[in-house]
Amino acid sequence: MTADSDSENYIEPTSRAPVKVFDCKNCDLGSLVEEIASYEDRVQKIIDYVLSGPFKGKTHDELAKFVDTFGARPSGTFDLEKSIDYMIDLTRKEGLNDIVTEELEVPRWERGIETLTMFEPRKKKMDILGLGESVKTPLNGLTAEVVVISNFTHLEDTPDEEIKGKIVLYVPIFTTYVETVIYRKEGAAKASAKGAVASLVRSIAPFSINSPHTGSQNYSDGVEPIPAAAITLEDADMITRLYNRGEKVKVNLIMYSTLETAVSRNTLIDLKGYKDPEKLVIVSGHIDSWDVGQGAMDDGGGMFISWAVPVILRRLKLTPRRTIRTIFWTAEELGFYGAHSYKKSHKSESHNINYIMESDEGTFAPLGLVANGNRKTRCIVAEVLKLFQSINASTLVEDDSPGSDISIFTSNGIPGASLHNDNAKYFWFHHTEGDTMNVETPENLDLCTAFWTAVAYIIADLSVDIPR
Amino acid sequence: MTADSDSENYIEPTSRAPVKVFDCKNCDLGSLVEEIASYEDRVQKIIDYVLSGPFKGKTHDELAKFVDTFGARPSGTFDLEKSIDYMIDLTRKEGLNDIVTEELEVPRWERGIETLTMFEPRKKKMDILGLGESVKTPLNGLTAEVVVISNFTHLEDTPDEEIKGKIVLYVPIFTTYVETVIYRKEGAAKASAKGAVASLVRSIAPFSINSPHTGSQNYSDGVEPIPAAAITLEDADMITRLYNRGEKVKVNLIMYSTLETAVSRNTLIDLKGYKDPEKLVIVSGHIDSWDVGQGAMDDGGGMFISWAVPVILRRLKLTPRRTIRTIFWTAEELGFYGAHSYKKSHKSESHNINYIMESDEGTFAPLGLVANGNRKTRCIVAEVLKLFQSINASTLVEDDSPGSDISIFTSNGIPGASLHNDNAKYFWFHHTEGDTMNVETPENLDLCTAFWTAVAYIIADLSVDIPR
Repeated sequence: MTADSDSENYIEPTSRAPVKVFDCKNCDLGSLVEEIASYEDRVQKIIDYVLSGPFKGKTHDELAKFVDTFGARPSGTFDLEKSIDYMIDLTRKEGLNDIVTEELEVPRWERGIETLTMFEPRKKKMDILGLGESVKTPLNGLTAEVVVISNFTHLEDTPDEEIKGKIVLYVPIFTTYVETVIYRKEGAAKASAKGAVASLVRSIAPFSINSPHTGSQNYSDGVEPIPAAAITLEDADMITRLYNRGEKVKVNLIMYSTLETAVSRNTLIDLKGYKDPEKLVIVSGHIDSWDVGQGAMDDGGGMFISWAVPVILRRLKLTPRRTIRTIFWTAEELGFYGAHSYKKSHKSESHNINYIMESDEGTFAPLGLVANGNRKTRCIVAEVLKLFQSINASTLVEDDSPGSDISIFTSNGIPGASLHNDNAKYFWFHHTEGDTMNVETPENLDLCTAFWTAVAYIIADLSVDIPR
Repeated sequence: MTADSDSENYIEPTSRAPVKVFDCKNCDLGSLVEEIASYEDRVQKIIDYVLSGPFKGKTHDELAKFVDTFGARPSGTFDLEKSIDYMIDLTRKEGLNDIVTEELEVPRWERGIETLTMFEPRKKKMDILGLGESVKTPLNGLTAEVVVISNFTHLEDTPDEEIKGKIVLYVPIFTTYVETVIYRKEGAAKASAKGAVASLVRSIAPFSINSPHTGSQNYSDGVEPIPAAAITLEDADMITRLYNRGEKVKVNLIMYSTLETAVSRNTLIDLKGYKDPEKLVIVSGHIDSWDVGQGAMDDGGGMFISWAVPVILRRLKLTPRRTIRTIFWTAEELGFYGAHSYKKSHKSESHNINYIMESDEGTFAPLGLVANGNRKTRCIVAEVLKLFQSINASTLVEDDSPGSDISIFTSNGIPGASLHNDNAKYFWFHHTEGDTMNVETPENLDLCTAFWTAVAYIIADLSVDIPR
């Protein structure tokens, strides 16, 4: 999951409290209540098949094999394209052949050597991660004094001459992701406007074992782009203490990177509806990842539970009325490139998107959905979620534009939902070397897979469309 | 805290469950009960002075200043010696001048470049930490296949020809520290005996954000010393999965290091007893640290709460009957060098050690003491701990040789105790780059300081000696 301005409305238990839980007390769905209840047997069949049947542990095993084989899959790399081919093969082996890929141009930002060394008041090497699309430093790096900035008001209130020629270090203390990620995204542009030569940010995370967190950032037009990197909570806090004691903190920052463009692909897998095949229920996750870690959590898990939906339905011979389309978005991390491309090229059929779902905030224990839509829409979805009380996944959280990739659809009124899950530790691992299979468990992935598959099936099979 | 065989008996909530809590129901201490109860006012005075008086936050502030100034303080380095001088100055400023240092020879093992790169079945750079006193590799490193070993029985059962020329990777899953640290300590020696060219170990930790944990290890006589390093839980588990799928895993390991000897010092600070000054109650922690992180938790916190004991008692004019001696042990991490040296050079007065205390397992919220001694001894200590119910630090856990440095005294029957504290996350940070001030809080350090000071004072002031 990235944090583009487009997606700042997604729900994260660790970032936005309290979440607004939908109250379905006065929903009046008439005969639809009975119709939805009639799916109970099929829901149980799917749950049994995944939790204790032939699919038990498969999501975890396939995800592990996938990330072990390819590792990180940054936008624009050969590894990402190979991983897309692999997923297509894996899908075909399941007898699903209605697969297309759609090409688009994506950025290829390649991280080179990155070092940050404090040499005053003492020498200390620090672990850093450059931010996405950051420019590089001169070969010998930038050597400058650090000025510690608490927030943008503090920056504004600081005279330009105190910033000029220095390296700005933003030290926002994590409260919510939405509140603090602005320093990662906009920090370099704002620091440069005040004359800084580079911009550092305390990693956007509530917990750390000296683990820096990368992420995207945006330069502003008319402002000199300056090198931008994240440092660990520990180093940021140490520098802050030194600075507050009146010590002069001097560092050398070396960053190397290249930025090019390349071609990548969205992948679309259709399980055709038996009645209204032109109508779509989309389930999705992104296949690209940051270049650190393995992208197991962000977003291998979300991609694999979306992959499992048509696979399981086909195996169980549960063909819904509408088409289920699994999409593996590409190049999400640098700004929803795949989703934007899909939206543009499928504009003429956007009215056919009946419901759009995405899992990109972890595949911990599922709790329900984060959904948009009018009251009727939410009533229907809440009624569907009642079928998941046995696995404790019946909560509907309200959000006007849920999701990351799909937020560019849901924010325009297309009804949809992202997976609501027990992801309180999501930002411990997000965009770090720690985003690996060790974050995932077979049990949680099975629960997510069963839940995701059954929800998508019911919505795709209901006698009525989801209202916009 | 290190993990020498000498110290394997210390208590850690995360490593040894359930701990044995002492039951003081049938203690018969006679008039001593009343005597101990009479300390209540003085205990409260100390607690107030630290929790809400002039010492509030001071332990944290001084510890932060100390670790920010010196960073890591590995055995044999100039930084360690400068940090010892600093502590002596800091102590003199408090009007405590009864300070001596005692020299000893210590190892100086210096870590150089360390890289581990998997290149089959795919390329991946891995974060590693060489283990203490490991030999280096050839300049271009060792390139070999990895053989994954679950435990020493598995190693024994594997034919030598399957180990010869390969790199052994031990993958013990953390249960308790004591149970799993043997693979870090003895793994290289045992692997070498079977013909391995290097030894890797899954870090001895229950949790990771791609964080490797270093630590000491021992070669065996008559066995070729081979390079030894720890890798992260994440990488160990990935290699294990690849290996179990039948993939050939090949890596290149480069390690450089030097091993010399140097001179360091134990530091002894005495607050002389008014009645029996030759009798000692020792409070202690070690001043050296590993070369990664800042040694804030291991063992800056323990050292500072021990430093605070004579400082606070002097400020409050609470002079006990016996002498309180604060000791900053040196070179603990590579094998209790400071403690062994002290034991040897103070052999003739060892009968004068009335009680010996050490904090080297974290300074999280204090819970009580981990203590050895006969029943009478434990009854007395348990009675003292009753005075700390208001801060929830009244638990006495039984252990025959508590402590790390002090275990070489307590295991020989000298009565003593280590700080029992809420350290369930201790091994998340232990011997990593994450051992920083971010693990510590002012509140917990204040609680530890107050508790440590008051306990030491009472024991040093009682009318009776602690029985051996």
